[in-house]
Amino acid sequence: MSSGGDGVSGAALVEAVAAIFAAAGIAPADAALVAEDLVAADVEGVASHGVNLVPMYVDRIRAGSVSKASGGEIVSDRDAAVVIDARDALGQLTARQAVALAVDRARRHGLAAASVRNAFHFGTAGRYARMMADQGCVGVVMSNTRPLMPAPGGAEPLTGNNPIAIVAPSDAAFSPEIDMALSAVAMGRIRNAAASGQSIPAGWAADQSGAATTDPKAAIAGMLLPAAGPKGFGLAFLVDLLCGGLSDGAIGAEVAPLYGDPVRPYRCAQLFLAIDVGHFVAPGAFAARARTELDRVAASRRAPGVDRVYAPGELAFAARREAGDRCRVAPAALNALVEAGRVLGVDVQSMLSSPRSIT
Amino acid sequence: MSSGGDGVSGAALVEAVAAIFAAAGIAPADAALVAEDLVAADVEGVASHGVNLVPMYVDRIRAGSVSKASGGEIVSDRDAAVVIDARDALGQLTARQAVALAVDRARRHGLAAASVRNAFHFGTAGRYARMMADQGCVGVVMSNTRPLMPAPGGAEPLTGNNPIAIVAPSDAAFSPEIDMALSAVAMGRIRNAAASGQSIPAGWAADQSGAATTDPKAAIAGMLLPAAGPKGFGLAFLVDLLCGGLSDGAIGAEVAPLYGDPVRPYRCAQLFLAIDVGHFVAPGAFAARARTELDRVAASRRAPGVDRVYAPGELAFAARREAGDRCRVAPAALNALVEAGRVLGVDVQSMLSSPRSIT
Repeated sequence: MSSGGDGVSGAALVEAVAAIFAAAGIAPADAALVAEDLVAADVEGVASHGVNLVPMYVDRIRAGSVSKASGGEIVSDRDAAVVIDARDALGQLTARQAVALAVDRARRHGLAAASVRNAFHFGTAGRYARMMADQGCVGVVMSNTRPLMPAPGGAEPLTGNNPIAIVAPSDAAFSPEIDMALSAVAMGRIRNAAASGQSIPAGWAADQSGAATTDPKAAIAGMLLPAAGPKGFGLAFLVDLLCGGLSDGAIGAEVAPLYGDPVRPYRCAQLFLAIDVGHFVAPGAFAARARTELDRVAASRRAPGVDRVYAPGELAFAARREAGDRCRVAPAALNALVEAGRVLGVDVQSMLSSPRSIT
Repeated sequence: MSSGGDGVSGAALVEAVAAIFAAAGIAPADAALVAEDLVAADVEGVASHGVNLVPMYVDRIRAGSVSKASGGEIVSDRDAAVVIDARDALGQLTARQAVALAVDRARRHGLAAASVRNAFHFGTAGRYARMMADQGCVGVVMSNTRPLMPAPGGAEPLTGNNPIAIVAPSDAAFSPEIDMALSAVAMGRIRNAAASGQSIPAGWAADQSGAATTDPKAAIAGMLLPAAGPKGFGLAFLVDLLCGGLSDGAIGAEVAPLYGDPVRPYRCAQLFLAIDVGHFVAPGAFAARARTELDRVAASRRAPGVDRVYAPGELAFAARREAGDRCRVAPAALNALVEAGRVLGVDVQSMLSSPRSIT
């Protein structure tokens, strides 16, 4: 099956993915939320965090390492500091729970944080930081992953490429946003280089001995290198410690491989920080400053051969606007989705082939 | 004057620097604090943020762009959110004020932040984050600088290489610590390459047209490039916006050049965030986890030819321990210090040459 030149209807894709999760035992309302979050990543062109994940999520739900609960349990609740035990619920659901708590407490105290332990994958960190920004808070979201990168000079993975996202409220068409993994690149780009027989730049990866390599196969057998060397490692190390340390959750190798044994819970740790800008400055002042700064980037003098300079968050915004309701999904991912549905009695193909879902 | 093989006495250097600031009109107790903070950077081997700065600070005090006040004014104080107008007081003094407020409010609410506008240079961000960690809080400190780096594809500096420091409490001999500027490297390293006639690696800098360059002279006339490309730019952009936006202070080119006209106030903006770990988890639990993670780095398998793998913060700790009370200062910096003292009637040379200051 192919999604065709203009892709499939995003709404139809959300319905199909929601139907799959519902068939796997997730409450329909929860299934719809998780489907929305995943499809949103595909709409932005971040296929690695989109419906591509559904078969693995379903495998884990069926194997019991992802629970069917609607959220986690609040295990500590002290003023601006909340700790949630996700108990292996879907990360999108506990992330929304953490966002709501962090924003509520930030409105009361000025800023607040919810840490989450025993968490499952939540898709893109940026989506939840953006939800906080939409409510007038600077949103900061971070997660740890299993170890993927060595310390400088090391020869074994010690810390994940732990993503961090920050989104600031803005009264422009979009908000300043960063959402970055702390490796130089994702393993996906190295796999692509291996598949096409190309070498990779120095600085992307090390081989099993810890030596930098330009051979993608040695890199795949080895480990990722941090973005900006010691700076990226240091930041990833601190993100790991903040996520696990503030939730009494997993750090480093206590997080399981995401694509590993589906019976073994993933159990990463996450941190959601909300800063209510209205507690610091006059209402509207921060969002107006953000717009001014975004305008400054758009008006920036350009290097030779560059058509357009993009501000942080602008490319994702442009992708959303350009996509409208259309969503491109790679044939392999679409086929895997169809197969995941088939096992559960959901006819994905016909849901995506209804007249309104094709252009 | 030379600091000699083993350097000068750190205590004598603090006294001499404090005497200079006192002679320039700073209250003696304040002068001593600023001197301590500056000398601490020299002890750690970060000469760019050490006593090397004293002549410029003194020029600005004498020109009136740095005030003689002991701290800033608290202009907004709402729960966990405090805004300080530094009114051009020495950054070390307003940083200590911000640290004290952030830690106090974090103890009450779980986490808290103090933003600072119209601020002057405070030395190293890490020193103040460490002060928060020493009081049981994760300390996060950031500052903006004048624009030094273009957006990806841009040809003019839009944002500073805005430093960010994070230090987490630990019950090990040192605390996990990062303190990083967000450019690939500092301009000082490019000046060193120019002085020795060497080329610089691609990725460090761009020329005036915005094109990447390996020529240090073109780089000095051009601009710094961000660490990890778009990731570093995005993070620097957000740090700029957070510092200025949460304090109603300067962003981007509203910050003046540090070494520019000494009559024109610097007026950067800073943010101090404290997270009281005891509000989230049991007393001592976080610090113990931090130690475990530091131990994991020390025990890490090493790449060929590597003697030792260092955890974030360990090199600065080792430098402090090795230095003891001795402090190496480059002859040029020492001569400039002697001259700054001479103008104010302080005999730096004799203060550093007393028997107890020489080994």
